[in-house]
Amino acid sequence: MAKRVTGPEIEKLIQLLAKVPGLGPRSARRAALHLIKKKDQLLGPLSNAMGEAYDKVKICSRCGNVDTVDPCIVCTDVQRDQSVIIVVEDVSDLWALERAGAMNAAYHVLGGTLSPLDGVGPDDLNIRGLIDRLGEGGIRELIIAVNATVEGQTTAHYITDQLQGLDVKITRLAHGVPVGGELDYLDEGTLAAALRARTVI
Amino acid sequence: MAKRVTGPEIEKLIQLLAKVPGLGPRSARRAALHLIKKKDQLLGPLSNAMGEAYDKVKICSRCGNVDTVDPCIVCTDVQRDQSVIIVVEDVSDLWALERAGAMNAAYHVLGGTLSPLDGVGPDDLNIRGLIDRLGEGGIRELIIAVNATVEGQTTAHYITDQLQGLDVKITRLAHGVPVGGELDYLDEGTLAAALRARTVI
Repeated sequence: MAKRVTGPEIEKLIQLLAKVPGLGPRSARRAALHLIKKKDQLLGPLSNAMGEAYDKVKICSRCGNVDTVDPCIVCTDVQRDQSVIIVVEDVSDLWALERAGAMNAAYHVLGGTLSPLDGVGPDDLNIRGLIDRLGEGGIRELIIAVNATVEGQTTAHYITDQLQGLDVKITRLAHGVPVGGELDYLDEGTLAAALRARTVI
Repeated sequence: MAKRVTGPEIEKLIQLLAKVPGLGPRSARRAALHLIKKKDQLLGPLSNAMGEAYDKVKICSRCGNVDTVDPCIVCTDVQRDQSVIIVVEDVSDLWALERAGAMNAAYHVLGGTLSPLDGVGPDDLNIRGLIDRLGEGGIRELIIAVNATVEGQTTAHYITDQLQGLDVKITRLAHGVPVGGELDYLDEGTLAAALRARTVI
């Protein structure tokens, strides 16, 4: 702003809100004003929730999930089939797969993908931890659920290579037409994969 | 989520973030994970900034601006021409006009527009405060800078009516073609207004 029209504390709040993904400088101002208008219903509780999260958040030392206990609620859930590990790039993928509710398995968060150009090598990902978990035994299947991007697939190949010789079934997510998707809008690679993997009705 | 995959404190944080304008349930999850990943650079500072704003924020009892002092920095700015008051609907409009940097005047925030259907009458807006400010004398111009909506224009008419007989010049923002706007995309009302208010080059 050309001239200051509000207090430095509020400008600081706007500056920090603008760094939240999904908010830019303009929506950060709108968000800040909304928070201030809903001071007791939203600003106060959100400030407290952030403080609590700051104090309590932990990264699960076993799978890499975000939780307030370590090991996390997923790793200690006896109702899950802990002999199946779904390998994902990011915690958000773990949460997304859980919302699908299709599997009741354990997870392993890599924390990214191999990307030599960005200087991300195997040691920057939580691959060592995955091999350690497999070394403990009792794992019968590893579902590699990385993104269907070049980096994701490179990472999947690397992991598969590393696990050669281990007595564990390694699978990957199916390629195909997204549910609700229109063929006309899909790329050729997806359509070809969907045709190759066609199933009998 | 079907099954809990993270701590209740983090779920609470996501729930509250989803209430911030500009964020929905999905982007709130993404935002929460980003905040947690940037714990010390973003989550902690943002939590503190919200707490500070919560403790210190004040609504200026004179103009309705949001600040940490009352009267606000705009009302006490001796470098502003305090004899000109720009009347706006919302604090966000005050901030937007200040960013334009075209005037160096005082402001008055109404806090909304007249809207009988929503039960918003003159007493729900800060019109009384405006009349009081004019009664103190020393005001030579009132610029009604409400939105060019039906509600905004109704409010502008109401205020103008209330101020009949007072020795103050009342003006409104010009209608016309937005700078950078393309004629083809503008509505007929705007084009007609721009033609009527044409200026000599």
